[in-house]
Amino acid sequence: MDTAEFRRRGKEMVDYVADYLENIESRQVYPDVQPGYLRTLIPEDAPQEPETYEDVVKDIERVIMPGVTHWHSPYFFAYFPTANSFPALLADMLSGAIGCIGFSWAASPACTELETVMLDWLGKMLKLPEEFLAGTEGKGGGVIQGTASEATLVALLAARSRILKRILNDDPEKQEANIISRLVAYSSDQAHSSVERAALIGGVKMKKIPTDCKFAVRGEAFQKILEEDKAAGLIPFYFCATLGTTPSCAFDRITEIGPICNAEQLWLHIDAAYAGSAFICPEFRPLLDGVEFADSFNFNPHKWMLVNFDCSTMWVKNRSDIIGAFKMDPLYLKHDHQESGLVTDYRHWQIPLGRRFRSLKMWFVFRMYGLRGLQEHIRKGSNELNEALLKKINSARTIHLVPCQLAGRFVLRFAVCSRTTESRHVQEAWAHISKLATELLHQPSH
Amino acid sequence: MDTAEFRRRGKEMVDYVADYLENIESRQVYPDVQPGYLRTLIPEDAPQEPETYEDVVKDIERVIMPGVTHWHSPYFFAYFPTANSFPALLADMLSGAIGCIGFSWAASPACTELETVMLDWLGKMLKLPEEFLAGTEGKGGGVIQGTASEATLVALLAARSRILKRILNDDPEKQEANIISRLVAYSSDQAHSSVERAALIGGVKMKKIPTDCKFAVRGEAFQKILEEDKAAGLIPFYFCATLGTTPSCAFDRITEIGPICNAEQLWLHIDAAYAGSAFICPEFRPLLDGVEFADSFNFNPHKWMLVNFDCSTMWVKNRSDIIGAFKMDPLYLKHDHQESGLVTDYRHWQIPLGRRFRSLKMWFVFRMYGLRGLQEHIRKGSNELNEALLKKINSARTIHLVPCQLAGRFVLRFAVCSRTTESRHVQEAWAHISKLATELLHQPSH
Repeated sequence: MDTAEFRRRGKEMVDYVADYLENIESRQVYPDVQPGYLRTLIPEDAPQEPETYEDVVKDIERVIMPGVTHWHSPYFFAYFPTANSFPALLADMLSGAIGCIGFSWAASPACTELETVMLDWLGKMLKLPEEFLAGTEGKGGGVIQGTASEATLVALLAARSRILKRILNDDPEKQEANIISRLVAYSSDQAHSSVERAALIGGVKMKKIPTDCKFAVRGEAFQKILEEDKAAGLIPFYFCATLGTTPSCAFDRITEIGPICNAEQLWLHIDAAYAGSAFICPEFRPLLDGVEFADSFNFNPHKWMLVNFDCSTMWVKNRSDIIGAFKMDPLYLKHDHQESGLVTDYRHWQIPLGRRFRSLKMWFVFRMYGLRGLQEHIRKGSNELNEALLKKINSARTIHLVPCQLAGRFVLRFAVCSRTTESRHVQEAWAHISKLATELLHQPSH
Repeated sequence: MDTAEFRRRGKEMVDYVADYLENIESRQVYPDVQPGYLRTLIPEDAPQEPETYEDVVKDIERVIMPGVTHWHSPYFFAYFPTANSFPALLADMLSGAIGCIGFSWAASPACTELETVMLDWLGKMLKLPEEFLAGTEGKGGGVIQGTASEATLVALLAARSRILKRILNDDPEKQEANIISRLVAYSSDQAHSSVERAALIGGVKMKKIPTDCKFAVRGEAFQKILEEDKAAGLIPFYFCATLGTTPSCAFDRITEIGPICNAEQLWLHIDAAYAGSAFICPEFRPLLDGVEFADSFNFNPHKWMLVNFDCSTMWVKNRSDIIGAFKMDPLYLKHDHQESGLVTDYRHWQIPLGRRFRSLKMWFVFRMYGLRGLQEHIRKGSNELNEALLKKINSARTIHLVPCQLAGRFVLRFAVCSRTTESRHVQEAWAHISKLATELLHQPSH
């Protein structure tokens, strides 16, 4: 395929993508296929001679689409959201074309620098404490990981390395294997399976703290186990708190856990993969209170912030902690600027060596939505929409409601007022409200 | 941005990408910028209100391109090649649009199944032993990792898990921490830094075997250290051999190392990240002899096989070994087909949980190049081209050569024949050949 053909095929693909996303609602969200379906549809071997592009393209609908679970269908309510937006798709096309491997500053300065600055932009949107930002002189900063699992693991490895250095510094005679066998990490009993897996990979114990009736870890529950473990000769070194658990979107009480971690010199990592995007809205930001106690914080813009997978953003207060867990510098990866304070070599911040130019998607999305547009996406509905709904309800005259303002949001109050109201009246009212809300959302202006 | 605007902007982006790649030779391959250049070119914060697409696009040349190291410039000879082809770019556009997260079979059957079949296709192109293929009943199979670093780490973790199970099975009284402290992994002293890093992450010792004058590990050198280590009470469990080292493209002697690993029950992982693509050509396939002794094998089609980053292909003989190192199944990731032998849940094969639909790029590239086209790309030049060069040399009458055939290749023989030939004659002849070859390659037909 030469450049001229790419121009033509690329434009056809843009139309195919646009058609797919425009009409995705008409496709069955979960496929009917049985395991092994695909192998029977294509040859057993790669072709010896080139095929034409037409041959390949016609197989997309024949071979691929029948087996796709459509994550971007509005009827997809499984697992978790994964972001998809037109600006991010465009940025990824550019990233593919540039195709640089940004493992060090010199390997493509723009790739590294845009990432650092985008993580600062996003950190400011979240109102993260100053220490998490890189700026031009900061000790902290952010990095794009592929997934939250990797962020959890990288934080655990950094914590393991930090505690080992601390203990061996105090007593160089101690055996590393003996120390590691006594290390213990903690998480909520609601934490994602990847947290336990990080401990398995790092070869350390992981204990799950029982949660309260809201599925949250409280300081008291943690403190109790911590004391027992210390008394038993274990060395607590890492706590992975979750803000927005996978099963129920519960929030560990980091304002209670944080001070304990700080007092006991445990690394506190906060995993907000799922819920974190919401913290850019002032009304949700209080859920992040306590982040000031953390050593590292992570969430996934690729879940709920319109940036296509993969883009899991992670910040640390001390980048030397994270680099210390990994740093290795063979000659073929050295470059002139390496010792400059301004230079970041992201290969020391992650498990893989190679990395794509992923910050372009953040840049495109942040600029084309603006903070206001991103907040609207999180809120999925405006004050104006709520006001229109109330007007529609009251115009219909079937039920009657009045509104209130709560923290700047226009809220519809539903009060059970009459002595004669029974359960069936409330149920009828809810059915009526739902019907009117659905009608409103189907109006072309929304 | 609505769908209509995406259609327009997407087509503009296709043209931008085509222009960029068509004219990349005219851009300076390594940028002039100093560390910190980018931060001064863009605002300190994300915009509050949306910007237009024009605003964003005009900044690509102003902000990004001045800081790009152009990996696809024909003048780029640093690090290693990273693949880029039009079919792969088109497939990645489609992958972005589908935007599924293929961590399990059910999360998108097509994503998982195409990957399994593409790894079988590629395995057959490499003539891997049958045990590495999934087929419909095999115990082995392949997976796409992000990078070779991850493949090395995953193999090491699987090996660590296998040896632990074996020892604890024989003697359940043994302490896991004590076993881990005695484990020792091996690699060449020429191996990539990521190999040492894998051992650091896995918390095990790594020893580097001294190489011979061709920078290759020989069986004898390995056997010597192995015996010393066993005598010292260590437990050898993993060898990471390199086929095509990063510094000099040296090849460890796996026909010598392999039988030792098998006899001593060490996990043998072969890392051919850089050179592996060449094994699809029959004349280079002997370099892979000995792969039959390996437990796992990995190379990067994203380096030299026209599949854009990231696509690092890894095969294992026993997928239960690799799954055993990671498997965890929370309820929200369970699905009906999980116990079927045909179903692969790739999240158990890798470090991250999430994964993109990366096999599409392999499918597009394999089909649009065909095996023959891929072999030609590796060979970078055909028999016909060599014949044309010889004709050109002999027509010019300055020097005289005759050809030969070696294993199906048309080879130009250069024999020093005359009694009066001196060094300067050879040098002049080489300059002449180089000049004619360059002219030939600049002819529009090549």
